[in-house]
Amino acid sequence: MGELNVPERPLTGFTSSYSWEPLDEAVLDAFDVWEQEGRLGFLELPGDRDLLAEVLLEASRARDKAGTMIAAGIGGSSLGLRALMSALGNGSDRRVVVADSPDSSILSDITDSCDPASTLLTVITKSGGTAETLAIFMRLYDWLFAALGGEVNSRITAVTDPVKGDLRRLASERGWRSLPVPPAVGGRFSVLSPVGLYAAAFAGIDVEALLRGAERVLKDFRSRREVSLAASIAGAYLANFRTAPVHVFFPYTDRLYDSALWFSQLWAESLGKRMGLDGSDTFTGQTPIACRGPADQHSLVQLFMEGPKDKTITIVTASSDGMDSEPLSGGFDEYPSFSYLQGRTPDELRAAEAEATAEALEERGLPVSRIILPDLSPESLGELLFALETATVLVGLALGIDPLDQPGVERGKVLTYRAMGRPGY
Amino acid sequence: MGELNVPERPLTGFTSSYSWEPLDEAVLDAFDVWEQEGRLGFLELPGDRDLLAEVLLEASRARDKAGTMIAAGIGGSSLGLRALMSALGNGSDRRVVVADSPDSSILSDITDSCDPASTLLTVITKSGGTAETLAIFMRLYDWLFAALGGEVNSRITAVTDPVKGDLRRLASERGWRSLPVPPAVGGRFSVLSPVGLYAAAFAGIDVEALLRGAERVLKDFRSRREVSLAASIAGAYLANFRTAPVHVFFPYTDRLYDSALWFSQLWAESLGKRMGLDGSDTFTGQTPIACRGPADQHSLVQLFMEGPKDKTITIVTASSDGMDSEPLSGGFDEYPSFSYLQGRTPDELRAAEAEATAEALEERGLPVSRIILPDLSPESLGELLFALETATVLVGLALGIDPLDQPGVERGKVLTYRAMGRPGY
Repeated sequence: MGELNVPERPLTGFTSSYSWEPLDEAVLDAFDVWEQEGRLGFLELPGDRDLLAEVLLEASRARDKAGTMIAAGIGGSSLGLRALMSALGNGSDRRVVVADSPDSSILSDITDSCDPASTLLTVITKSGGTAETLAIFMRLYDWLFAALGGEVNSRITAVTDPVKGDLRRLASERGWRSLPVPPAVGGRFSVLSPVGLYAAAFAGIDVEALLRGAERVLKDFRSRREVSLAASIAGAYLANFRTAPVHVFFPYTDRLYDSALWFSQLWAESLGKRMGLDGSDTFTGQTPIACRGPADQHSLVQLFMEGPKDKTITIVTASSDGMDSEPLSGGFDEYPSFSYLQGRTPDELRAAEAEATAEALEERGLPVSRIILPDLSPESLGELLFALETATVLVGLALGIDPLDQPGVERGKVLTYRAMGRPGY
Repeated sequence: MGELNVPERPLTGFTSSYSWEPLDEAVLDAFDVWEQEGRLGFLELPGDRDLLAEVLLEASRARDKAGTMIAAGIGGSSLGLRALMSALGNGSDRRVVVADSPDSSILSDITDSCDPASTLLTVITKSGGTAETLAIFMRLYDWLFAALGGEVNSRITAVTDPVKGDLRRLASERGWRSLPVPPAVGGRFSVLSPVGLYAAAFAGIDVEALLRGAERVLKDFRSRREVSLAASIAGAYLANFRTAPVHVFFPYTDRLYDSALWFSQLWAESLGKRMGLDGSDTFTGQTPIACRGPADQHSLVQLFMEGPKDKTITIVTASSDGMDSEPLSGGFDEYPSFSYLQGRTPDELRAAEAEATAEALEERGLPVSRIILPDLSPESLGELLFALETATVLVGLALGIDPLDQPGVERGKVLTYRAMGRPGY
């Protein structure tokens, strides 16, 4: 019975061009303590079958009702969903539009492209009070209300705290559908909660496979500890966190560019922090840059090759990406700039460039890491996202900071509320 | 006759929160010398009426033939066009799709969304030999050829060197339409040449107004020298070029986000350089990050507020942006997180956030500049792009480097050609 011996697919791989020390046992112990204290809610998402069932049920209802979903959210409530849709949403039989900009002109573009009769509106904010998200939602609500009147209430799903906040109250008072954001899951760690999964499931993405990928990374982390995928990424990234002020996250496929932007938030907001509370006024943080290969070879690589040596690089590829594509035919034998491409594929060129860029940057003496997904499947994406979340928390704990808070954004909020005349500010 | 006294519209404004010295006269003199030597071809684009006429004629022919244009290009041959389309292409009666990724899956998405019977293909590469661009072009050529056979030749326009290169030779041998990239105009300075203007004009963008905006900036620079808009930007940016390794370019409108990505290439590739030829192995460069307000407040501002003080910030806004939009209605009086937004617009919130973020970052002690466009018109965009091009060259000359070359990308090209088996490598 050969079929029973199906080899397990390989886990996402990670290598780096430089040497680094495995994470200290004390960091892994601190992680365990935080988990036991219930602070790392994202760790529970891969195994939360009840929440998954709730997401699948709501998504199935939504699929029965409409062809389009507009998802209003910002930051942690939009970047993860964008990452899922870009990587996995091609060929979907449903359309998901992410609205994250309080900009009338952009919002008009969106409403002009949607038919209110077959559009659902999902509003995503954990606190239930994010200003931009509510402004975007209110504009879209006005648009739907103008077309549908009171029926608008049957078109709205609120993804928010299970108990607290104005949005939760509204949802229950007006009979809107809703899904919970578990309270211990922070915004930038919420992609595998209803925040990301609901609209993804509406689009037909296999969200169970996403969670399965995450679970594999979690099991690997629990069993292999400091040599696991997540802890390896953390160890390697920690090694040059202070010596390389800039981290270039450089996928060589457009489908993962939004994952790079998602990583930018995760890395910047978790690890860009004032150190300690002793008044010493020192700061830590590494500036992430999301790049897109090979396009950004023609934009930023000159700087990486000849500018200040202040960067560390992660090249992200997927092994089977584009392997089955058609070769270029052409008929350009007489034109040397064209002829060597005949019989090859654009994807072979792209893979060669990923490797060439990594090598050139290594030769230049920059620390280069490689993340290699087995493929561009939901399971692999789940592995990538979950491994990066876990690694980010590990690095934060190793640095002695709180990777879960974001106190630095308060000042701008207060100034905005004042300018907008919000009572109490 | 009051109508004769129409006040001239204001030029794009620039202010900064920190003090800086006007550019040295020697830098302006060096600029003049480079111009006289014919090295700064982009300066001639605003006044080149013949080239404009050629672009308008070709675009008009194209508009008569088709509803969609796919533009294949990469780096300087795609970023400028994307900037024009994002800022000004809304409401267009023609569709422009920029293809800059040698990725079968992305290219299939593009061809699936286009009807070959009404699609034109434009291939943009100054040298005529850019590997990615030609691989993208060859895939799209195969697709058009499969649908149209020999008629494909009537659908192609080559934007390339007027004389040199395989693409120029192909265009003349196969009877493809073509437009020239003036030899003295480098890729990242080519947005206002046929590279950007042809597809923009096809989309109905007023490219003459773009050039008018550029011309105003040029006149302002010639007459006001070190206190002109372009030289002011250069002086202010030069002041913290060495002390702030990261330059955050932060427009508060989605429509200018692609302009920020365009600026990233301009700034990184022009100014990220090995210094001198004396073997001293020192490097210069400032890492640009394109941000998008207010969305990136929820992603990167925590790092800017509490991370290392290694950044300078440019907030970009347009004065009249969204001023005429509809206020939010709502009916959410009982919900404080919603009610203060009623009667306001998403755009008022966005404007308040731009100001609040700038203030918070200034309070934090970061150097903040503000670029204020009068509006989101072609003329204003022309001002912005041209002022930044001019300022970049000025900063390069002040640093004592060549802002026009990009020697650092050669190594990756050689390794790629080898991997692809290109003869001679």
